[in-house]
Amino acid sequence: MADTTCALAAPDAYDTATREAVYRTILTRRDTRGDFLPDPVAPERLSRVLLAAHHAPSVGFMQPWDFIILRDSETRRRVHDLFAKANAEAALMFEGERRETYRGLKLEGILEAPLNICVTCDRSRAGPVVIGRTHIPMMDLFSSVCAVQNLWLAARAEGLGVGWVSILDNRALKSLLRLPEGVIPVAYLCIGHVRGFHRRPELETVGWRRRLPLADCVHLDGWGNVGGDPELADRMLGDQAAVDAGRFLTRRLV
Amino acid sequence: MADTTCALAAPDAYDTATREAVYRTILTRRDTRGDFLPDPVAPERLSRVLLAAHHAPSVGFMQPWDFIILRDSETRRRVHDLFAKANAEAALMFEGERRETYRGLKLEGILEAPLNICVTCDRSRAGPVVIGRTHIPMMDLFSSVCAVQNLWLAARAEGLGVGWVSILDNRALKSLLRLPEGVIPVAYLCIGHVRGFHRRPELETVGWRRRLPLADCVHLDGWGNVGGDPELADRMLGDQAAVDAGRFLTRRLV
Repeated sequence: MADTTCALAAPDAYDTATREAVYRTILTRRDTRGDFLPDPVAPERLSRVLLAAHHAPSVGFMQPWDFIILRDSETRRRVHDLFAKANAEAALMFEGERRETYRGLKLEGILEAPLNICVTCDRSRAGPVVIGRTHIPMMDLFSSVCAVQNLWLAARAEGLGVGWVSILDNRALKSLLRLPEGVIPVAYLCIGHVRGFHRRPELETVGWRRRLPLADCVHLDGWGNVGGDPELADRMLGDQAAVDAGRFLTRRLV
Repeated sequence: MADTTCALAAPDAYDTATREAVYRTILTRRDTRGDFLPDPVAPERLSRVLLAAHHAPSVGFMQPWDFIILRDSETRRRVHDLFAKANAEAALMFEGERRETYRGLKLEGILEAPLNICVTCDRSRAGPVVIGRTHIPMMDLFSSVCAVQNLWLAARAEGLGVGWVSILDNRALKSLLRLPEGVIPVAYLCIGHVRGFHRRPELETVGWRRRLPLADCVHLDGWGNVGGDPELADRMLGDQAAVDAGRFLTRRLV
């Protein structure tokens, strides 16, 4: 009798509808700041989003993440104070017109979102020696970041906006959330239902930075050989143009 | 006339089939080591997978990533030499039986996969001051990790296995790939078609570590309050049991 628990799952690509769903979710995911609604997030949605995060890859199957869900408004007000202080410091690092633009940007939704989630990394979770972390000590932090990205994509599919607030003093945040020694904050996220999802990143819309041409970021067999595979470069140009024209999902998956 | 470029996209959750596709991809993604086939990856698949990576979130819309595609077998042989050296060092860090188990694990597919991709981070890409990186300098590295996770999920949907090789001396790798000053390797990936996808993480199957109970990783309003929201905890227990029983996608999305 075949041991089906050991058999491999089929190696085939998923069908077009499944791939369309995955790319749609990736392409429509946004960093949400000013568009949160106060409506509560249903526990079944939140559970699924956390389950997605928990199935991220992790170095040595370490699963170093925890998820601190913050609903209490007093705690969030104190996090917002940390943001306000750091943001005032940050504004001074920009010059002239850029500083004014910076000050006009809405960069967080800590109090407007119905909940915040701090994703952490417990650096001692699997003991001092971890498979795959022996030569790159940051690998456990990277595992927690993979969990963030899974969470973000699942949230988008569930109709939930997510914003990553990184303008914070992490040491003060660690203290505020009472994280033990060895556990550090990796990402502070605002999450909730939204008025809608922006069609493009807000920093692109306000002219802060443009989307880079993908083909310029792809090198062949070592740094600098951009365009080294002309067939691939042509395909990337076509895919990116299709995204810009809103035709990627309908035209480029077959 | 409405400016449709500024209108927000609908805030609703995606339909059940779309969400099923997203969760299916997240739950079936695996770290592939020993199951690569030599078959070439079609340029249209590779382009889409890179496009997915390029649409990851990035701090200050910095898009700090580059993708070094390695097909040349001589370069990959030299990377494999770096792995072999680091892996021998790593084995000595484990004791007794654990060391023997470690030595028996297949931890990379550098030469068997038809291509490798090094995902990098150009720390100077958007100038010295980057929105959102002012207080957490590692944010740009985290952006490149988000690109890795998007790539990994798109690859799974395309029927491509991905393995992250982290047992490497990054300084030697940087030199080997001729990365300029300020550009650092974030992830070294093996990618290609596979014999099949493992149903569980290989480190779980060999008994190295277990999947943690999700509910134990979720705290309410500060560290330590695990189970603080009983309705959410109950839902997470049910979701995780459904995953184990292979019923999550059919039973838990409605």
